[in-house]
Amino acid sequence: MNPPKTDARRHHDPEVRGFASDNYAGVHPEVLAALALANGGHQVAYGEDAYTENLQSVVRSHFGATAEAFPVFNGTGANVVALQAVTDRWGAVICAESAHINVDECGAPERVGGLKLLTVPTPDGKLTPELIDRQAYGWDDEHRAMPQVVSIAQATELGTVYTPDEIRALCEHAHAHGMKVHLDGSRLANAAATLNVPMRTLANAAGVDILSLGGTKNGALFGEAVVVINQDAVSHMKHLRKLSMQLPSKMRFVSVQLEALLARDLWLRNARHSNEMAQRLAEGVRAVHGVEILYAVQANAVFARLPHDVSERLQKRFRFYFWDEAAGVVRWMCAFDTTEEDVDAFVAALKEEMAR
Amino acid sequence: MNPPKTDARRHHDPEVRGFASDNYAGVHPEVLAALALANGGHQVAYGEDAYTENLQSVVRSHFGATAEAFPVFNGTGANVVALQAVTDRWGAVICAESAHINVDECGAPERVGGLKLLTVPTPDGKLTPELIDRQAYGWDDEHRAMPQVVSIAQATELGTVYTPDEIRALCEHAHAHGMKVHLDGSRLANAAATLNVPMRTLANAAGVDILSLGGTKNGALFGEAVVVINQDAVSHMKHLRKLSMQLPSKMRFVSVQLEALLARDLWLRNARHSNEMAQRLAEGVRAVHGVEILYAVQANAVFARLPHDVSERLQKRFRFYFWDEAAGVVRWMCAFDTTEEDVDAFVAALKEEMAR
Amino acid sequence: MNPPKTDARRHHDPEVRGFASDNYAGVHPEVLAALALANGGHQVAYGEDAYTENLQSVVRSHFGATAEAFPVFNGTGANVVALQAVTDRWGAVICAESAHINVDECGAPERVGGLKLLTVPTPDGKLTPELIDRQAYGWDDEHRAMPQVVSIAQATELGTVYTPDEIRALCEHAHAHGMKVHLDGSRLANAAATLNVPMRTLANAAGVDILSLGGTKNGALFGEAVVVINQDAVSHMKHLRKLSMQLPSKMRFVSVQLEALLARDLWLRNARHSNEMAQRLAEGVRAVHGVEILYAVQANAVFARLPHDVSERLQKRFRFYFWDEAAGVVRWMCAFDTTEEDVDAFVAALKEEMAR
Amino acid sequence: MNPPKTDARRHHDPEVRGFASDNYAGVHPEVLAALALANGGHQVAYGEDAYTENLQSVVRSHFGATAEAFPVFNGTGANVVALQAVTDRWGAVICAESAHINVDECGAPERVGGLKLLTVPTPDGKLTPELIDRQAYGWDDEHRAMPQVVSIAQATELGTVYTPDEIRALCEHAHAHGMKVHLDGSRLANAAATLNVPMRTLANAAGVDILSLGGTKNGALFGEAVVVINQDAVSHMKHLRKLSMQLPSKMRFVSVQLEALLARDLWLRNARHSNEMAQRLAEGVRAVHGVEILYAVQANAVFARLPHDVSERLQKRFRFYFWDEAAGVVRWMCAFDTTEEDVDAFVAALKEEMAR
Repeated sequence: MNPPKTDARRHHDPEVRGFASDNYAGVHPEVLAALALANGGHQVAYGEDAYTENLQSVVRSHFGATAEAFPVFNGTGANVVALQAVTDRWGAVICAESAHINVDECGAPERVGGLKLLTVPTPDGKLTPELIDRQAYGWDDEHRAMPQVVSIAQATELGTVYTPDEIRALCEHAHAHGMKVHLDGSRLANAAATLNVPMRTLANAAGVDILSLGGTKNGALFGEAVVVINQDAVSHMKHLRKLSMQLPSKMRFVSVQLEALLARDLWLRNARHSNEMAQRLAEGVRAVHGVEILYAVQANAVFARLPHDVSERLQKRFRFYFWDEAAGVVRWMCAFDTTEEDVDAFVAALKEEMAR
Repeated sequence: MNPPKTDARRHHDPEVRGFASDNYAGVHPEVLAALALANGGHQVAYGEDAYTENLQSVVRSHFGATAEAFPVFNGTGANVVALQAVTDRWGAVICAESAHINVDECGAPERVGGLKLLTVPTPDGKLTPELIDRQAYGWDDEHRAMPQVVSIAQATELGTVYTPDEIRALCEHAHAHGMKVHLDGSRLANAAATLNVPMRTLANAAGVDILSLGGTKNGALFGEAVVVINQDAVSHMKHLRKLSMQLPSKMRFVSVQLEALLARDLWLRNARHSNEMAQRLAEGVRAVHGVEILYAVQANAVFARLPHDVSERLQKRFRFYFWDEAAGVVRWMCAFDTTEEDVDAFVAALKEEMAR
Repeated sequence: MNPPKTDARRHHDPEVRGFASDNYAGVHPEVLAALALANGGHQVAYGEDAYTENLQSVVRSHFGATAEAFPVFNGTGANVVALQAVTDRWGAVICAESAHINVDECGAPERVGGLKLLTVPTPDGKLTPELIDRQAYGWDDEHRAMPQVVSIAQATELGTVYTPDEIRALCEHAHAHGMKVHLDGSRLANAAATLNVPMRTLANAAGVDILSLGGTKNGALFGEAVVVINQDAVSHMKHLRKLSMQLPSKMRFVSVQLEALLARDLWLRNARHSNEMAQRLAEGVRAVHGVEILYAVQANAVFARLPHDVSERLQKRFRFYFWDEAAGVVRWMCAFDTTEEDVDAFVAALKEEMAR
Repeated sequence: MNPPKTDARRHHDPEVRGFASDNYAGVHPEVLAALALANGGHQVAYGEDAYTENLQSVVRSHFGATAEAFPVFNGTGANVVALQAVTDRWGAVICAESAHINVDECGAPERVGGLKLLTVPTPDGKLTPELIDRQAYGWDDEHRAMPQVVSIAQATELGTVYTPDEIRALCEHAHAHGMKVHLDGSRLANAAATLNVPMRTLANAAGVDILSLGGTKNGALFGEAVVVINQDAVSHMKHLRKLSMQLPSKMRFVSVQLEALLARDLWLRNARHSNEMAQRLAEGVRAVHGVEILYAVQANAVFARLPHDVSERLQKRFRFYFWDEAAGVVRWMCAFDTTEEDVDAFVAALKEEMAR
C-alpha cells in the first residue's frame, strides 16, 4: 500500500520483531484495508452504523442466534464491562490467581467495577470444579462478597488451553451454584485453533454466559467485543459500556476490524500461524540443553526457565519479558506476523548465549 | 486508495453526509495513511514506542516544554483521567450545568472517578469567575465535597468559545482559591481556529493545568490525549490511565494519528474547514425567515429553534439531532468533510420545509 | 440517673443548649434507659438478636405488613444504602438541589454508591411532578445516567413539609415513569407531627418504596433504619448494608433505641415538642422588626434573614449556623430538649441585638 | 442500675452467654454509665464537642504526642477510612489472606475505597517480611496496583499475636519499600494484655503509621477510632471519614465510650479478662481427648478441630461458629463478660459430647 503524503513520519524499522508480546505486533494488512473500506461519508456514531449492524450477524455465525456483540476499546474494558454485567453490587468473581484481571489491570475490576476477586492458586492457570469450590461458598453470608461469576481465560495467561469438556464441567458446576461464567477470550482464537474446533464449542456450546472476544492480539489495530450469549443473564449492556468509558464514538471502525477478522477465516489464519510459531519455538528450545519449558505450549506463548544471565544477554538481541525474574522464568510470545526465520534466529541466539 | 482484498465488505454509501455530529464523519485520509506508516514490525506496547516518544515533542511544540501527552481512547476517558489526576478522593469539580462531563457521560465521572460535580447554570455554556463563585466555597467543611478543580470546555458544548482573556481570568480566579483548571479540549482546534491563535494561547499561556486534547472530532479514527501542562499538579498519570481502562496496548496507532493531526497543520485545516462550514450554514439559515439561531456560532456547531414539524421533515432528508425537543431546539454540526454543497443543499431543504 | 463510677468524666455543662442543630442535643432519657434494658448477656450480633426481631413488628405497626427495617448507623448511610437498593449501576437519582444527599454528604452517594444525582432547583426544598420532569427523561439514552429513583425529604432540608397528597402525586408521577421513590425521613416524625397523621400516611400510603427513618434527630444516641416498603423493588439489603459499612455488630442497641422511640409515642412526643418550640420561636421572631422568616415553619427549623452583624453578636450568646452567609440567612433548629425558656431567652436576645 | 420507665421492653435473658463472638457481649456497665455522663445539654455535633477534644489527650497518653483520633462507627469503617488515608487511587494493600478486610467485609475495601488487596497465605494469620515480599514488587509497573500499605491485625483473625519485634521488622521492611503500615487493632487491647506492654509498644514504637483502634469488642456499645500516628502520611482525615459515611453526628457518645475504656485501665481489665477466659478454656479443652487446638492461644480466641457431630450437638447448648466447617474447625471466643463458670460449663459440655 502506497500511503498518501501525511504530516506523520515513519519512526521505526518495520522489519524488526521480537518475542515480547502479541501486542507488539502491528495490524494485519487486511484489517488495515478494512478500515479504509469503512471510511468516507457519515455513519451514525456510537454503534447504530451499518458495520456494527453487520457485525451482529457475523458474530451470530460464530456464537449462535442469541449472541450479541458490544464492541469496546480494549481487553481490560471488555472484561470489566462483562463482569459488571453479571454481578450485583455485592457480587464477587472467582478466578485464577494468575488471571489477567487479577494481576495485570491495576485494580480496574475493583476500582471501576467495585468487584471483589476471589482468587485461587492453580498449577497451570486453569480452574477446575474442585478449585472453584475453594471460593464457592457463603452465598447467604452478608459478610462475604457473594460469588456470582466464575471467570476463566481461554487461552489462559500461562498459554494453556481448556478442552471443551473442561469448560463444560466448569460451567455446569458454576451454574449449579447459581453462578454465571465469563470467558476472557482475548486469545480465544488461539485456543480454537489449537483444539481445531469452532469458537462456539468453547463458549456457548460449553455453557459460557458472556465473553470478552479479543481483536487486538489477533491482528486488529485496537478493538474487542463483549459477546453476550445468555441474554437472560444481563441487561442494559449499552449503559454499562458507556459508563465504563468503553463506548467508541466512531464505532464503525471497531466493527469493521472485527468483521475483517471474523467474517471469513482471518481470525483462524492469524491464530494458527502464531500457534505454529510457538510450537516451532518450543521445539527449538527443547533441543537446547539447560532450558526448561514450564507449561504445555497450547497457544502462542512459551514459558521457559533458563539462567538469568543468559536471559539478559538474549534480551539485548530480542525483546522479551521476564515473567518471574527471581525464578528465572521468561515468557516468549509469538504473533500473527512472527516468521519462521524469526523463530529460527531466536533459537540460534538462545543456543549461542547458553553456550557462552 | 485501492484497498487490498479483505474479509470485510463496504456496507455504506461514502457519499452520504449529514449534520448530526462530527463523530459521524470518518477518518481524514492523511490520518488513515499515517496508520499504515506506523504499521509493520514490532513496537513496544503500552506507550514505549517510537511514535509515542515522538508525539511528546510534537505536543511540546504546541503546549510548551512542560507539556506531556498521555494518549487515551476517547474523550470521556480523557476527561475522567484528567479530573482524577487533579483531585483527591474528597475532591469536587466545578463545571457548567451543560458540560459534557455532566450531561453526556452516563455518570462516568461519578462512577469511575468517584467525582462530585458542582454544577452552575450558564447562559451560553461558559463559566465566569462570578459563576464559579456560586460553587467555590466550603473548602474546610468536611460535609461538602471539596472544590478542587474548575473544568471548562473550549469550544463549549453549545458551540461558543472563550477568549484567551476569559480563560486567563478563570484560571487566576481558580488558582487564587487553590483550585486547578481542566480544559475539555475535544474541540480545542476549532476554538483556536476561530480565534486565530495557537492552542497554547488557550491552554498553558492562560493558566490551564491539564487538558483533554481531542483527536476523534478533528479527523482521527479514534484517540485523544490527556495533556499535562502543570507537572506539579499531578503524579502517576500512567497508573491513573491504566486503572481507568484507557491504556491502548498498540499505542503507536493512537500516537501516530495525533502526530498526523498536530505535526504540521492538519489539525488547523480540519478545524478551520468545519468552522467555515458552520459559518456558511449559519449565514444561510439566518436568511430563512422563522428560524432562530440561538448561540454565537463560534466553532462548528449551529443551534437553532424552528417549528417541530419542520425539523421532523428535515430529519428525513438529513440526519441531525434535537437538542431540546420540547423547546424546538436542534443542533447542526459540521465536520472536516462537510462540503459547501452539503451546506447549500441543507439550507435549500430547510427553506423548502419552512415554506410547506 | 446516678451513674456508677466510671473512668470517664463529665466535660460539659448539661444546662447549656443552643439552636444550632437537633444533632447537638443528647439522648432522650427513655432511650438511654432502653440501652440498659437491652444490655447484659449475649445476643447474636449483626441483627439476629431479639431486639431487632421485635423491631420488625414495631416497624410494621407503623408502616404496614410489608415493611422491613434494616438498622444502620447514620443518616448518610441510610440514604446511600437505600438509594443503591433501588438503582442499577447505571442509575441516577432525581432530587432537589438543596437536598441533604446533594449538599451535605461530601459526595458519599457518588463515591460510595456510584450514584449520579440529577438535581432540580426548588423554591422551598420541595419537588413537584413538574420539577421532576426537568430531569425525568432519556431512559433509553446510554449517554445519560438513567433516572431510576426520585428522592424527597420529609421534612425537607428547608424545614418545609409535603402534604400526603403532594407525596402521592410525586409517587404516581415517578411510578408512571418506571421510577421508584425514596423518602429521606431523618425528620419524618416532625412532618407527621405537623400534619397530625401517622407516618405511614406519608410513606407507604402515599406510594413511597423505601425510606430512611431517622432516629438520631428524634432523640436517639445514634441509629437510623432503612425501611423497605415495596419488597419487590429491592433485594439483598443485608449485603448492601454490609458493603456500605453500615452494619452495626451489636445491633440490639440500635434496635432497642428505635423500639424506645417507636413502640409507643416517644417519637411523636419528641417531634411535637421540637415542632412546638420552632413555632414558638417563629412567633417570637415575627414580632422582631427587621428579621424576615424565609420558609413556612412546618417542622423544627426556622430560617431567617437578618443583619450580618446581629447574627454574629447573637452567635456569641447562642450557638447556631449561617445557612447562606452572603445572603444573611441563618438557620435555627429546635430539638426534643429545647425548652420554652430557651426560646424566650433567645428571642429576647435577638431583640436586644437588633436594637443595638 | 434502675432504669426509668421506657417504651422499650426487655426481650432477652441477660444471663445467657456463649462463645460465638466478642460482639455478642453487651456493653460494660462503666461504658454505659459514661454515656449518661455525656448526656444532657447541647454539644457541637460531628466532633467539636468537649468529649472528643478530651479523647485526644487520652489517646495521646497511649500513642504519643503525634497521635490523633478520629472516632468512627465500626471496625470495617475504621479500616477502610484508614486504608484510604494511606493510599492513592492506584494503591494496593498487602495483607494476609485470612485478614478480616479480605474475608469478612463483603468487599467494602474494594467497593467503597477502590482498594486492591494483594493477599498472602500465612500459616497463622501473621505476615513476615518474607511473606510481604511475595506481593511487594512492581511499584513502577502501571499494570499492577501499587503496593502502598501493609495491613496487619493485632491480634490477628486467628487469635495470634505479633511480638513488638515482629511488628518492628515488618514496619522497617515496609518503610524501606516506601510503604506505610496499617494496624487493624480491633483487638489491640487483647494483644497488649497478652504481651504485657503498653499499646504504643505495638503501634508507634514499632513504626505503625495508622491504626484502627477497637472499642466495640473491648466493651463499648459501638465505636472505634482511626488513630493517626504518622501525621505526614495522611491528610484530610475528616473529609475521608465523612465521605466514607463514618462520621457520627452525636460524636460525644463515641468519644466518651473510648474515654471510659482508655482513660484509666478499663481497656486492660476487659482485655485481660477475656484473654484469661480463653486461656482457661484452652486449658480445659486440652484435657479433652480428641479435640485439637489449632493456633497459639494468644488473645481471646480458641480455634479447635473436633468431630463435626460433636460440634453440632454442642452448638445446641452453646452458641459458637464453625470456622471451616468442611475441616471440622470451630472458633470459640471469650468476651469481657465471660465467666469462669461459663468456661467450666462449656468444657464440661464438650467432654460430655465427646464422650457420647
